Amino acid sequence: MAKPPRLYTDTPLAPGAGVDATDEQAHYLLHVMRLTAGSQVLLFNGRDGEWRASVTIPAKRRVHFELAAQTRAQQAEPDLWLAFAPIKRVEVLAEKASELGVSALLPVFTRHTDVTRVNIARLTANAVEAAEQCERLTVPRVHDAVSFDAFLAAWPPSRILYVLDETGGGVPIAHALAACEPGAPCGLIAGPEGGFAQSELDALRQLPFARFVGLGPRILRAETAVLAAVACWQALVGDWSKRDPTA
Amino acid sequence: MAKPPRLYTDTPLAPGAGVDATDEQAHYLLHVMRLTAGSQVLLFNGRDGEWRASVTIPAKRRVHFELAAQTRAQQAEPDLWLAFAPIKRVEVLAEKASELGVSALLPVFTRHTDVTRVNIARLTANAVEAAEQCERLTVPRVHDAVSFDAFLAAWPPSRILYVLDETGGGVPIAHALAACEPGAPCGLIAGPEGGFAQSELDALRQLPFARFVGLGPRILRAETAVLAAVACWQALVGDWSKRDPTA
Repeated sequence: MAKPPRLYTDTPLAPGAGVDATDEQAHYLLHVMRLTAGSQVLLFNGRDGEWRASVTIPAKRRVHFELAAQTRAQQAEPDLWLAFAPIKRVEVLAEKASELGVSALLPVFTRHTDVTRVNIARLTANAVEAAEQCERLTVPRVHDAVSFDAFLAAWPPSRILYVLDETGGGVPIAHALAACEPGAPCGLIAGPEGGFAQSELDALRQLPFARFVGLGPRILRAETAVLAAVACWQALVGDWSKRDPTA
Repeated sequence: MAKPPRLYTDTPLAPGAGVDATDEQAHYLLHVMRLTAGSQVLLFNGRDGEWRASVTIPAKRRVHFELAAQTRAQQAEPDLWLAFAPIKRVEVLAEKASELGVSALLPVFTRHTDVTRVNIARLTANAVEAAEQCERLTVPRVHDAVSFDAFLAAWPPSRILYVLDETGGGVPIAHALAACEPGAPCGLIAGPEGGFAQSELDALRQLPFARFVGLGPRILRAETAVLAAVACWQALVGDWSKRDPTA
């Protein structure tokens, strides 16, 4: 039997509660998945765990969910904020970073960023879809795009910020992460295809919470570097070092 | 000034040697990059390091390179073979794995592999292009696609094979890799979107050189899992733990 569709909702989930599907969800369930009344789905909202629910179809093109039982309790997830200069393939980046378990996506316009606009609604949709697919219990929060200076000014000083330094001056990433307490809230910032400007690297070096890290001798594309660094963080600091809690 | 184009050739590279560009290279250099006689390029062949060379144009649509000087000596590179069930986006996988520094690409048809043909020439072209871009001194060797049984029969028993176990039964990847001698020749095998068949997992478990590893509680797409695992291997066993040798 195929797995039931898994959907994110912002409605509270509790015993006996009902949830209305959005128009997009109703279209997807009725016309793509071809669900009928009585079909099962899984719902999560980032706060109340995951719930099994039954589909009802109160009117044409409308879908309602009746909650049956909680299937997974909410639990703490790794807390890694990913700040990145928007690149051309930013949607792939948002999707894969969500799949790899980042807790927030922060687009930052750096000096060498070629992309001038970021569609936050689209990035959020990519993040939601990835969270639904990969069985997360949360969706990463997608922040509005800000300038590099505004980003630095707003960073919480208690949160370590790993800087992906493509100039070769960083500490090997495994060494840097070995010094991090498991589960500590962290952040990662990556520049655009053209790299950080020297003034940006200089500004980052002034910050007591910044740690410059390197990803070896080869020149990685911006997107590859980001995903590689997130994977290393999950393996060494995040929840990959524990066994599957559902196993 | 823009970096000179960097090209792979299979011709020997030595002081005073000349190299003929392939038709594709000539087209790219003359019509895309718009190089002229006297322009500089960088050449590598996987054996003789990297060389600076000057372009000559002996005839219309023909390009010849006159070698000037070696810019980098050949050196040992990490030895990680990547075996993978061909997936729909196999070209992206080949490109990014090459960028991340795998030494060989081995397509393996597993029971749940949906893709039935692999274009080895295309995968090789993806690997060459990634190697040119990322400044590797080698191109990963692309093997012919084989059946799962043929793959297992041909595996050298002295080479550890990390199995990406999406069923949740593997050792956390950072723990498994911490037990590996830095720089040891290794391999990695990943299943298709549908995972390995139980019989395949059973066969792998029989092998003294196989190590089952896990990538945390979220369900990763086949391609994301492969790239994440390669990144962790480079960070913990491969050459990311050293500083940039050219720095």
